Amino acid sequence: MSNFDSELLKMGQNAKKAARKLAYMGTDAKNEALMAMAQSLILSEDEILRANSRDITAAEKKGIKKSLINRLRLTSEGIHQMSEALGDVVHLADPVGEGDFWTRPNGLRMQKMRVPLGVVAMIYEARPNVTVDAAALCLKSGNAVILRGGAEAIESNKVLARVIAEAAESKGMPAGTIQLVEETSHDWVQQIIKMNKYIDVVIPRGGAGLIQTVVQNATVPVIETGTGICHAFVERNADFNKAIPIVINAKTQKPGVCNALETLLVDQKIAESFLPLMGAELQKHNVEIRGCAETCGILPYAVPATEEDWATEYLDLILSIKVVKNLDEAMDHIYEYSTKHSETIITENYTVAQRFLREVDAAAVYVNASTRFTDGGRFGFGAEIGISTQKLHARGPMGLKELTTVKYLIYGDGQIVK
Amino acid sequence: MSNFDSELLKMGQNAKKAARKLAYMGTDAKNEALMAMAQSLILSEDEILRANSRDITAAEKKGIKKSLINRLRLTSEGIHQMSEALGDVVHLADPVGEGDFWTRPNGLRMQKMRVPLGVVAMIYEARPNVTVDAAALCLKSGNAVILRGGAEAIESNKVLARVIAEAAESKGMPAGTIQLVEETSHDWVQQIIKMNKYIDVVIPRGGAGLIQTVVQNATVPVIETGTGICHAFVERNADFNKAIPIVINAKTQKPGVCNALETLLVDQKIAESFLPLMGAELQKHNVEIRGCAETCGILPYAVPATEEDWATEYLDLILSIKVVKNLDEAMDHIYEYSTKHSETIITENYTVAQRFLREVDAAAVYVNASTRFTDGGRFGFGAEIGISTQKLHARGPMGLKELTTVKYLIYGDGQIVK
Repeated sequence: MSNFDSELLKMGQNAKKAARKLAYMGTDAKNEALMAMAQSLILSEDEILRANSRDITAAEKKGIKKSLINRLRLTSEGIHQMSEALGDVVHLADPVGEGDFWTRPNGLRMQKMRVPLGVVAMIYEARPNVTVDAAALCLKSGNAVILRGGAEAIESNKVLARVIAEAAESKGMPAGTIQLVEETSHDWVQQIIKMNKYIDVVIPRGGAGLIQTVVQNATVPVIETGTGICHAFVERNADFNKAIPIVINAKTQKPGVCNALETLLVDQKIAESFLPLMGAELQKHNVEIRGCAETCGILPYAVPATEEDWATEYLDLILSIKVVKNLDEAMDHIYEYSTKHSETIITENYTVAQRFLREVDAAAVYVNASTRFTDGGRFGFGAEIGISTQKLHARGPMGLKELTTVKYLIYGDGQIVK
Repeated sequence: MSNFDSELLKMGQNAKKAARKLAYMGTDAKNEALMAMAQSLILSEDEILRANSRDITAAEKKGIKKSLINRLRLTSEGIHQMSEALGDVVHLADPVGEGDFWTRPNGLRMQKMRVPLGVVAMIYEARPNVTVDAAALCLKSGNAVILRGGAEAIESNKVLARVIAEAAESKGMPAGTIQLVEETSHDWVQQIIKMNKYIDVVIPRGGAGLIQTVVQNATVPVIETGTGICHAFVERNADFNKAIPIVINAKTQKPGVCNALETLLVDQKIAESFLPLMGAELQKHNVEIRGCAETCGILPYAVPATEEDWATEYLDLILSIKVVKNLDEAMDHIYEYSTKHSETIITENYTVAQRFLREVDAAAVYVNASTRFTDGGRFGFGAEIGISTQKLHARGPMGLKELTTVKYLIYGDGQIVK
C-alpha cells in the first residue's frame, strides 16, 4: 500500500505542478514539443520494437488470444504512423485562449475563455499507440497527462512514454507533462481514480469491464467512452439499394469497434422481401445471424436470438435481427437496448426520418448512412481522444476542445455589487 | 429497504418516461406550463403558507438555529416573488434545438444540436424556493426533475411540488415531469445518487457536507456546486479607493453566500499603509479579523489566524488576512487554498493584472471588482441553477444551456465508410 501511495502521490504532485505552467504555454511552444516527440519516435524505433517484442513474447507465453496480440504489435510502419499522427496534432487548432467577450451594463468587461482541464488520467488497455495519441492531444490542449495502459503493453509503453516525455521536456515543457504509471496492478487503478486533489478528469478507454469499473468506483469526474450497441432500422419505405450496403458496411467494415452495427431492426411490412436479400449478403460476408422468431421463419439459417443478444455488443461478425411492427416499436427497442452511441434509420419517408432524428436519444443519429461515421476524423474534428457515450461535458467524438474547460476573466475598475 | 427501492424505482421510471416526451416539447408549450405554474402559486398561497408554518413550528420545537429558520420561512411576498421568478424563466431563450451545421466532403450533412440532459436530480437543503426555481429551469430546458429537499422544509416542499406539478400537467406536460421525494432520510439520498439507469445528472446544492457526500458516493455524474473560499489580493500598485470598497462589499454585502470574500491577501510593500485603513473600515462593519503574525503586528485587534483559517469558508462576518511578499506568493497561497470559485486582484499595474488573470485557476478571476458578481443574473445569463466549481461540463454560473447536452443529427443518402 505505502509504495503506491507515495509513488502515485508524487506523480500527482508532478502533474499538477506541470499543469499550472502548461495552462498558459503558447501554441508555438506546444507545437515545437509535438514535433520533437514525432521525431523522437523515429529515432528510437529500434528500442521501441525491442520493447514491443518483449511484450509480444510475454503475451504469447501467457496464451493471450491472437486478436489481442495483434492490437499489441508494433511495426516499423506503425511507428512511422504514430509519428505522423503527432505531426497531424501540430496542425489542429489550439482551443486554449479562444472565447466570447461581452460588457455588462455596469461596465464590467467579461471574457469567457477556454482553458485546459488541468490533469487528465487515461486508463486504457492493450494498444500502445494510445500512449502516444493521448499524450499528444493532452499536451496540445495544455493538459498534463497520467497514462495507465494495460499490463500486456507495459514494456512498449515504458519506452514510448519515456521517449516522448524526454522530447517534450527538451523543448521546454515542464517535467511531469507526460507520465506513465509503470505498475499495472488493478489496485493502482482504484487509487488513481480517487485522486481528486491531483486529477481533474479520468478517461477510461477499452472494454465494457474496464469502463464500468472506473465509472462505479471513481470519485474524480469521469468521461465515459465507448460501448456501442448500435442499431440500424430498415423502415418500410427504405431503398434496399441503400439499406443493404449500409448494413454490410456498418457490420463488417471493422466489426471490432464501438460504432459497428450490432442489431438490425426490420419493418414487418418489408421483412419477407428484404430479409432474404439482406441475409444472402450477410452470409457472403460470413456474418452469423441471431434472429427473432419471425426472422428465423424467413431465414432458415438464422440462429434463434435470446434476450441477451439484444443487450450484447458482439464486436464480431455476428448480427442480431429483429422484425418490428413499425417505427414506434423500433424506437422502443432502441430506447430499451441502445447504449446511446450511434443509431441509423434507412427510409425514404421524410416524416419518419424526422421523427427518428428527433426522438432517438444517442450521440449520433443517422438517416441513410452507416454508423461507422461516428469518429472525430470523419466528423471533421481531427484526432479524437475517445467517443463519449455520456451526456455531461462531451457527447460523441471528443477532440481537443473537449479536453478544455472555461474560465471567466472579468475586467473591472472598482465595481461593487449593490 | 424494499419500500424505498420500489418507490424510487417508480419515480425513476416516471421521470425517464416523461423525459422522453419533454425532449421534443416545443418552447411555446413549455412556456404555457411555466405560466400556469406561476399562477398556481398565487392561487395556492394560503395552503403553502399553512404548510410552511407547520415546518417552522417543527423547526422551532427542534431548536433549529434562527438563520436556518429564516431561510425556511415563506411569506406572501416571498410566494409572489417565486411566482415572478417563474415568469422570468418564460422570457429566457430556450437552448434546446439550437446548434451548428456543416457538410462533409462525402455529402453527409451534419447538425450538432442542443438537447436536454434527460432526468436531473436536485439534492438541496432548507430553502423551499429551490423547489420552484429548479423545477422551472429543468422544465424550460426540457428535463424531468426529481427534487429532494431538506427534512426541515418537507411540508412546504410537498405542497409546492404538488401545486406546480399539477399546473404543468394541466398544460400538457407529461406526468413525472416534476417529482418530489417525500422521504427525507439520508438512505434515500444514497440510493438516488446511484440510479444511473434513470438519472442523467445529480446537482447537489447546499453546504460543503452535503456536496461532499454526493461527490464521494454518487455513481451518476455530478455537477459540484458551491463552496467558495474566495480571495482578494491587494497588490502594491492598488488604488486604495478601489480596494477598500471592494473588500467591504465582497465580505459584508451578503456574507452567507459562496461568492463572498473569505481571505484578504495584502502585499508586504503596502501592508503598513493599507491595513490600518482597511482594518478600521472592517471594524465599522463588525468584521472579525483573523490575521497572520504580520497582520496582528499592524492591527492589534486582529485575532491570530491558525492554519485552519486559510482553508475555512466562514460564510460569516469573519475575514482572514495574510501579508504576502509579492504576486507570486499571493498566487501560491490561492493555488493552495482556493476552491476555484472566484478570486480578485486590486492593482493598477497592467502586467500584474494580466498575470493574475492568466495564472489563477478559478471559475471567475477578477481585476478591480468584487467577487460578489459571480452569479448567473449578474453575468447576464438570467436565472441560474447553481454555480459549478468543477471543470467538467460547466464552470461558474449554470443557466439553461448547462442543463442541456448535444446530439449529432446526420443526413445521408446512402454513404458508407470506405
